[in-house]
Amino acid sequence: MSLLLAFDDETALAHRIAQATGWPLAIIERHRFPDGESRLRLPPALPAHTVLLRGLQQPNDKLTELLLAAAGARELGAQRLTLVSPYLAYMRQDIAFAPGEVVSQRHVGRMLAAWFDAVVTVDPHLHRVASMDEVVPGRRGVALTAAPLLGAWAGQQQPDALLLGPDEESMQWVRAAAAALGLDHAVCHKQRHTDHSVEVTLPAIDLRGRAVVLLDDVASTGRTLVEAARGALARGAATVDVAVTHALMVADAMQALRAAGVRHVWSTDSVPHPSNVVSIGPLVARALAGVAS
Amino acid sequence: MSLLLAFDDETALAHRIAQATGWPLAIIERHRFPDGESRLRLPPALPAHTVLLRGLQQPNDKLTELLLAAAGARELGAQRLTLVSPYLAYMRQDIAFAPGEVVSQRHVGRMLAAWFDAVVTVDPHLHRVASMDEVVPGRRGVALTAAPLLGAWAGQQQPDALLLGPDEESMQWVRAAAAALGLDHAVCHKQRHTDHSVEVTLPAIDLRGRAVVLLDDVASTGRTLVEAARGALARGAATVDVAVTHALMVADAMQALRAAGVRHVWSTDSVPHPSNVVSIGPLVARALAGVAS
Repeated sequence: MSLLLAFDDETALAHRIAQATGWPLAIIERHRFPDGESRLRLPPALPAHTVLLRGLQQPNDKLTELLLAAAGARELGAQRLTLVSPYLAYMRQDIAFAPGEVVSQRHVGRMLAAWFDAVVTVDPHLHRVASMDEVVPGRRGVALTAAPLLGAWAGQQQPDALLLGPDEESMQWVRAAAAALGLDHAVCHKQRHTDHSVEVTLPAIDLRGRAVVLLDDVASTGRTLVEAARGALARGAATVDVAVTHALMVADAMQALRAAGVRHVWSTDSVPHPSNVVSIGPLVARALAGVAS
Repeated sequence: MSLLLAFDDETALAHRIAQATGWPLAIIERHRFPDGESRLRLPPALPAHTVLLRGLQQPNDKLTELLLAAAGARELGAQRLTLVSPYLAYMRQDIAFAPGEVVSQRHVGRMLAAWFDAVVTVDPHLHRVASMDEVVPGRRGVALTAAPLLGAWAGQQQPDALLLGPDEESMQWVRAAAAALGLDHAVCHKQRHTDHSVEVTLPAIDLRGRAVVLLDDVASTGRTLVEAARGALARGAATVDVAVTHALMVADAMQALRAAGVRHVWSTDSVPHPSNVVSIGPLVARALAGVAS
């Protein structure tokens, strides 16, 4: 029997995965000292296969605690250690855009490969790196997708929905979301200027009277979705909803989406957020069954 | 010629070390994305021996950036990488006080040993671990002490000072501080209850009319120093000043010290703080000359 280990601020998803796998769940006791150091306490004896659940939104602080938890788990008996990181950070910095820039994606990937035997994630934001196996060299990398879950949810709420992806790169992903219910779908063209400024060109299709659902893997500042929502409404869309896998929703992202005319925001529970409506628990549980065997 | 690399929030000490070594200094360009990821940019070509300066006060976030900087530096040509961490975190958690507790000291030490060829620090808070060489197994560990600098400063400000250490463990360190100017010195007995509660018993010596200088390696919440200051004043000390290597001064530490009757707070520049009066720059520079050769 494998054991699930979770941090105290991600217990909702942890319970769903535990329920779906039938595996026991233990919560890591965490104390933060006034000087910023963390003290972690794990169950004193761990089974040979132990699964650590840790999403890496706002990652820097968490990566250090993750190292401590992984190293501690090895000492307490975990021979095989699997990381479930529903949101995996640093996947976008996969090339030096200027000389001397640190290619964080590669280094974070290698670090995870040094600590874990397998890494399971959902909709990682990979560009030039083809697969999760490449992200954690020599280890097992599993990339799940929440696209069908989000597409099904959107179609149940809005049977005539038009699913709209943010950029050309998202085409395959949006197609997967649309497939189950045979929904209409298309993608925008996107050009990023700065962290907070982005230009989105809508596809040349008739949006008048349509119930548009903007689909994306991650919403950080939400600026891409805001631009797309404004554009769709200006082009005559009846409603605009948003469905994302990872609702990071940094700073005023939710207010900005509301202000742009977005009606509903839906997300999976990969990142804990009030917009969570779909659970990735069963999806992750199925993947874990494969990793454990 | 070696190169010094520093982060943008620790430039004062970096300039002093650069001046004392005569080595060039480059500041790491750092961008923080809204989602909490860091982008670092180093000089595009690094010399064979590169020195990274990074104090680890409030360590978790910084350790991840340190990994990225170290990994990036290796790719940019650094064959030998030295870390100068004036304040080294996680040195106190060197044993599992309860079953399952993660022994962070060991894991952070191993992590640093994996990234760096040598680690230089000042007054590390080691208990059961005897030396810095043990902290970074297989690598070169250098522990400097600021005790003589602090003792000399205290004696110059207050020629008849009585140096008082916080606990029995600090005896050797306080003696080193007192030696240069032949100052009187003694230590307290300390018992810690919680992060914020500590009991300090003063030594059985006459404090009436004395200019007491409380000496410690690190001031975090300042509770130990507050207790010692109150005790010394209650026992008739004329004045109480504080001299510490690392002025972490978490939360209301400074106000608490003032409220307890502390007159001056003096510290080294190992941690940037308004109380900095003594520079460890020349001390670190001498150690680096040894490491570089």
